[in-house]
Amino acid sequence: MRALRLHGPEDLRLDDVPEPELRPGTVKIKVEWCGICGSDLHLYQAGPAAFGLDAPHPITGEGAPVIMGHEFAGRITEVGAGVTGLAVGDAVCVEPELYDDTCAYCRRGDYNLCLQSGFVGINGWGGGLSEYAVLPRRMVHRLPDGIGTDVGALVEPLAVAWHAVRRAELPPGATALVVGAGPIGLGVLSALGATGARLVAVSEPSTARRELAARLGADTVLDPTRDDVPARVRDLMDGLGADVAFDASGLQVTLDTALGSLRKRGTAVNLAVWEQPAQIAPTQLMLTETSLTSTIGYSGADFPAVIAALRRGVLDAAPFITTRIPLERAIQDGYEALLGAGREEQVKVLVHP
Amino acid sequence: MRALRLHGPEDLRLDDVPEPELRPGTVKIKVEWCGICGSDLHLYQAGPAAFGLDAPHPITGEGAPVIMGHEFAGRITEVGAGVTGLAVGDAVCVEPELYDDTCAYCRRGDYNLCLQSGFVGINGWGGGLSEYAVLPRRMVHRLPDGIGTDVGALVEPLAVAWHAVRRAELPPGATALVVGAGPIGLGVLSALGATGARLVAVSEPSTARRELAARLGADTVLDPTRDDVPARVRDLMDGLGADVAFDASGLQVTLDTALGSLRKRGTAVNLAVWEQPAQIAPTQLMLTETSLTSTIGYSGADFPAVIAALRRGVLDAAPFITTRIPLERAIQDGYEALLGAGREEQVKVLVHP
Repeated sequence: MRALRLHGPEDLRLDDVPEPELRPGTVKIKVEWCGICGSDLHLYQAGPAAFGLDAPHPITGEGAPVIMGHEFAGRITEVGAGVTGLAVGDAVCVEPELYDDTCAYCRRGDYNLCLQSGFVGINGWGGGLSEYAVLPRRMVHRLPDGIGTDVGALVEPLAVAWHAVRRAELPPGATALVVGAGPIGLGVLSALGATGARLVAVSEPSTARRELAARLGADTVLDPTRDDVPARVRDLMDGLGADVAFDASGLQVTLDTALGSLRKRGTAVNLAVWEQPAQIAPTQLMLTETSLTSTIGYSGADFPAVIAALRRGVLDAAPFITTRIPLERAIQDGYEALLGAGREEQVKVLVHP
Repeated sequence: MRALRLHGPEDLRLDDVPEPELRPGTVKIKVEWCGICGSDLHLYQAGPAAFGLDAPHPITGEGAPVIMGHEFAGRITEVGAGVTGLAVGDAVCVEPELYDDTCAYCRRGDYNLCLQSGFVGINGWGGGLSEYAVLPRRMVHRLPDGIGTDVGALVEPLAVAWHAVRRAELPPGATALVVGAGPIGLGVLSALGATGARLVAVSEPSTARRELAARLGADTVLDPTRDDVPARVRDLMDGLGADVAFDASGLQVTLDTALGSLRKRGTAVNLAVWEQPAQIAPTQLMLTETSLTSTIGYSGADFPAVIAALRRGVLDAAPFITTRIPLERAIQDGYEALLGAGREEQVKVLVHP
């Protein structure tokens, strides 16, 4: 079958690889849609060796070149021995986190923190940028009627956002700022709306993304190149500031904006990969009892919760999809386009293998 | 009466001031013991103007020179009209936070975050480094039989530590590192013991303070000038690291030690005043879902909780007291000694006005 594999920095190749074979406890999925993620772009530019992916992963035993794509959905074509609750023809999405079940974090259910963590589509066991994937039952979630596999491919990034909102432990009625309206920032905005936030502001320099944030329910959309975001947020939110601010950008200026927009005892949540260290002002944080927390991936009920919110219609993921391309265009119109001049017009590029 | 007032940088004077007069809703206290705090030393060196204390405080209407001392206890000599639950002769300690009751934080009970916050002993209404203080009923806590006013003067710094432990929201059975064994670090160690921590390590370069930490119940006492603290903590704590690390020192190296000693999804708590910005590594914090939080002061049940723990004997504050001096020696044997060469031999200096 055809599969997009990363061989080195900016060296993605459409390879011909053996079709994966069904094993007991697994299902075989014909991939219909796979998204491209910001971390895929980091990996593409730096190459697998920079992330230690040339060595075999302890769970999959595989190293580079591996098939890319960890945001994907499709239909089941075969069901392995012992699998219950799934049938041939079911539309499903994949929760791609690799974990080993036995580590101290996994035993508490925090498998996103597994000491041997990894991802299908980065660390082996196939990926979404190929025609088929064979995966263990526990990684596969059935999509309810009415949720297409295109939206199904968005469950993974939405689960990242949902997990971040869950970790912030906000009561219903919270006020929030989202800094950066890329796919994760927009996912956080949507998850806040689906979990009862009272007021959500979004700060984003791109006009196209600001418009999408407004369409997805932001109460106020701010342009950090023109607006004094902390002052505007304070005015909007009880004269105090936001209960929580999510930084989905990962720059000193966006972290400063997030921290500076909080009410006292507020929480800033970082979801971004940073290239550099950051600076903070501990005494200012202390005087205001501010917290800074961080989240990665998803665990527990995050995938089922996103799927339920999509089914109820309180999450709307379709507007995230800005481009649909076939697998043979994934390098040029996917990876390269998302790194190019028009990238801020894009939110989610979906690839159809 | 005699009172120690701060007139400028390193300009404390033993002034003669009018004795405060009883008003309805207040009690008059003959101060027996008053501690000197790290923030007092900051203020002494920088002077009141550097902290904006020359302007009148919105609650007290007073500016510099004001009477110093916010860690104090004594006996009631007069009880004002309308005061219930306190009687002449009662041993009491003072919860010195000033707040205005009406701000959004006060209305939620977070009066340590009051938009007009301040402290008796810094911002007016007298202080503990004088013979008498007249204070509103709500600031005064009765000490149970068997708790002397010397230990009573330690309730305030212990409440700071207790509040930090409370804010960390640890379940009983937690594992913890305390970085820095000054009065606040030792208070955190004691509060952890009194709230069911399973394992507590303390990192402290001073031999005298390490010995006191061991005496106060630290399971492991580490010397950061010789030990690899994060590695030792990880070995000691399930091979993972500490659930929480309290930084009571406020240096880049102590913050790095605190963050580096955490298990995944651990929390570092900063209680220290920093002179500079700090650097953090957001991606490392993200991969481990680490949180950094900050605490100041106390609120709600912190004072009553400390007093109850002292009464039950699960908190032992007497070992904190290393020196007792009369008011006329407070500058030389108190402030100057705590800034001088022998300061690391000291924990708490108590002044008897």
